[in-house]
Amino acid sequence: MLEELKEEVLKANLMLVTEGLVRLTWGNVSGVDRESGMFVIKPSGVAYDDLTAESLVVLDLEGEVVEGTMRPSSDTATHRILYRKFPDIGGVTHTHSVNATMFSQAGVELPCQGTTHADHFFGTVPVVRELTAAEVAEDYETNTGLAIARHFEENEIHPLEMPACFQKYHAPFTWGKSAVDSVKNSVALEVCAQMGLGTWQLNAQQSGLPQHLLEKHYLRKHGANAYYGQG
Amino acid sequence: MLEELKEEVLKANLMLVTEGLVRLTWGNVSGVDRESGMFVIKPSGVAYDDLTAESLVVLDLEGEVVEGTMRPSSDTATHRILYRKFPDIGGVTHTHSVNATMFSQAGVELPCQGTTHADHFFGTVPVVRELTAAEVAEDYETNTGLAIARHFEENEIHPLEMPACFQKYHAPFTWGKSAVDSVKNSVALEVCAQMGLGTWQLNAQQSGLPQHLLEKHYLRKHGANAYYGQG
Amino acid sequence: MLEELKEEVLKANLMLVTEGLVRLTWGNVSGVDRESGMFVIKPSGVAYDDLTAESLVVLDLEGEVVEGTMRPSSDTATHRILYRKFPDIGGVTHTHSVNATMFSQAGVELPCQGTTHADHFFGTVPVVRELTAAEVAEDYETNTGLAIARHFEENEIHPLEMPACFQKYHAPFTWGKSAVDSVKNSVALEVCAQMGLGTWQLNAQQSGLPQHLLEKHYLRKHGANAYYGQG
Amino acid sequence: MLEELKEEVLKANLMLVTEGLVRLTWGNVSGVDRESGMFVIKPSGVAYDDLTAESLVVLDLEGEVVEGTMRPSSDTATHRILYRKFPDIGGVTHTHSVNATMFSQAGVELPCQGTTHADHFFGTVPVVRELTAAEVAEDYETNTGLAIARHFEENEIHPLEMPACFQKYHAPFTWGKSAVDSVKNSVALEVCAQMGLGTWQLNAQQSGLPQHLLEKHYLRKHGANAYYGQG
Repeated sequence: MLEELKEEVLKANLMLVTEGLVRLTWGNVSGVDRESGMFVIKPSGVAYDDLTAESLVVLDLEGEVVEGTMRPSSDTATHRILYRKFPDIGGVTHTHSVNATMFSQAGVELPCQGTTHADHFFGTVPVVRELTAAEVAEDYETNTGLAIARHFEENEIHPLEMPACFQKYHAPFTWGKSAVDSVKNSVALEVCAQMGLGTWQLNAQQSGLPQHLLEKHYLRKHGANAYYGQG
Repeated sequence: MLEELKEEVLKANLMLVTEGLVRLTWGNVSGVDRESGMFVIKPSGVAYDDLTAESLVVLDLEGEVVEGTMRPSSDTATHRILYRKFPDIGGVTHTHSVNATMFSQAGVELPCQGTTHADHFFGTVPVVRELTAAEVAEDYETNTGLAIARHFEENEIHPLEMPACFQKYHAPFTWGKSAVDSVKNSVALEVCAQMGLGTWQLNAQQSGLPQHLLEKHYLRKHGANAYYGQG
Repeated sequence: MLEELKEEVLKANLMLVTEGLVRLTWGNVSGVDRESGMFVIKPSGVAYDDLTAESLVVLDLEGEVVEGTMRPSSDTATHRILYRKFPDIGGVTHTHSVNATMFSQAGVELPCQGTTHADHFFGTVPVVRELTAAEVAEDYETNTGLAIARHFEENEIHPLEMPACFQKYHAPFTWGKSAVDSVKNSVALEVCAQMGLGTWQLNAQQSGLPQHLLEKHYLRKHGANAYYGQG
Repeated sequence: MLEELKEEVLKANLMLVTEGLVRLTWGNVSGVDRESGMFVIKPSGVAYDDLTAESLVVLDLEGEVVEGTMRPSSDTATHRILYRKFPDIGGVTHTHSVNATMFSQAGVELPCQGTTHADHFFGTVPVVRELTAAEVAEDYETNTGLAIARHFEENEIHPLEMPACFQKYHAPFTWGKSAVDSVKNSVALEVCAQMGLGTWQLNAQQSGLPQHLLEKHYLRKHGANAYYGQG
């Protein structure tokens, strides 16, 4: 079942390696099929070289395993909540990519410093708070998803306009229209985080590009009047 | 038409990947044929792995597509203006390479700190101002090219002696005698930007090498008495 | 003898290269067979490309060469002492990986700044003091192992909960349940050190993640209730 | 003639690429045959991919080309002077490797911060002054070699104990017992420079390791009682 989606999720997980976003087994990508209400995710702790489409795990949005013999990623419940709370997204990526993780650990949000950022993220990439001891004790991974969703809701951030966040003391989560798209947002976040650190080293006052440039670049690539790519 | 130029522009675009100047599809190279008044450029949003000489787009210097079925790079109008305003150049490269983009975002120009820089750029690499809201609304990419050309004219900078600039809040543009030469200048700019950040970390007072070394190194590689390479 | 262990130690040494932990011949991995009381280690100064299972050296825990025609790694005595003092470990890795060596040279310990660290190291990675002139004159490599073991004993640090240290002015040592596991800890230490430097650049006040997150992440991967991987 | 030496010099030049020490054509290695008084060097401006043993240029120590149809490296005169002034060396490497060039541009010498450095360089890597306008006008490359040799002589530094220097505003030069050995010293210098910058970021007071550790590590690898490698 879901053979096409499995192939895309496999490809997206392998991109983590070719894009330099992971070491060892520190990252996972999933993709959802909205029609059947099921999502496909990497099995836990399996080396990327050993991944096959068959080794991926299929779950429904209640969290029940529907297909697959391996244990799904330990972060599966976070992915599941994001699919439930953000109904427009089609894929989720979690990595510990170096520069984005620095921002997560530092608890520093990333303003839109330039057009590379504006091409992917419409504004400041937020920091989502760490979980309390009670939340961890109850259900760490589910509550991680809920904390992210609540942050976006309370701050009225649209998840497809801002397909990324830094979870404090942890690492980034990104999402997108598809599994591959969520990995591309992970690449963009990692590069913007790296640039962000260097930009502040050169100019500690840099606090973001003018709003008209943010809008221009974001809308050049996204929405009804986008003219980037082959349409 | 222009088969030889297409092969060179293809090669130059692929160098963006092998030289580590791009992620995803964030860069484009073009080359011009001065005799026919046409230039060849990468199609928009196409992965470098999928590029072929046939997929490149040919335009005239009025901006009309002369050959090709794909939409040209979204930055095409900037390339076109640079060809019109800088009649001696043969190629243009635009990337979001990490270190050069940091300087662009920071709005910090790069003085000539050493001979690596002097071998390629005769003096300080300038920052070109960001566009106004009115300029963006009118024609973003054309006005980007005009802002660069105006900066060079007003500051009496010769485009082949200084084949690079940082566009504020955006990223670098470089050019050269050919498409491949413009990519080489992009490599040099990226490395000099990386070195520049580190040089200032070690010695915040470093403000540039003596003029006689700048001239020696630049003229060792460029001009009538150059003696670098196989002539 | 110990053919299986030799294959694992060979693989672990080659991982030093593929994981980017070594330049030239600056690293060595060993693995121990507790039943026979022997360990297998890289020969000294041999390029990784030239390593074979047969070229590895087998020693007993008294330090006598039992098999092999080449001189063992110059750091062999340090490995041997760690095997004697830390009876639960199965492998040892020594590298001069760039970021972990910076911490060693700076004599700065690495607090647990985030979950990447908590997944591998239960608390602050310690700095072990440099040797005195007398210790160096007597037996440099043996005394290096003794200084590490003494540090862990005096500070009541469990070697499998903290499978890493920075030796001052020198470089990191890591260990683990097996040779490959000790290399994985070396990867984690290198990445956490890199993130640590950047985290402090962004937020000089960051002093560690809350204890409940440290415990959650460490225990998610280690111990009786671990649920990471395919168990 | 000198076929064996040519093969080694070819290999050493290709190591510049595989070791990540060069971009474009920014580096050159030579090796000398003391018996015949001739040295072999890379041709100027030739891509490393196009190098063959036959394309290398043979010169005598007066600077006359003895064999080869291409123009030798523009830095040939510097190599030649180093061979004349440092009679024990067998190879010379010049690169613009990023971190070592930062130190050159900053004019900051690199103290021995740890054992990675001590394994290759017996003490502080010096900065050699930039040339005067008169020296540049007379003979830039020859005077570069003379400035290096004079610095070592006046400061009583032994060239094989300190096979490296940073030329101010320019880049590093290294040398060694052979062409390949000089490249290995270039690798060590680049890594130590990278570590040096990070070590000072972590601990601005770090001013070098104790003398007894410097001596131990240097002598573990060099001299009559060395016990590193297969002897």
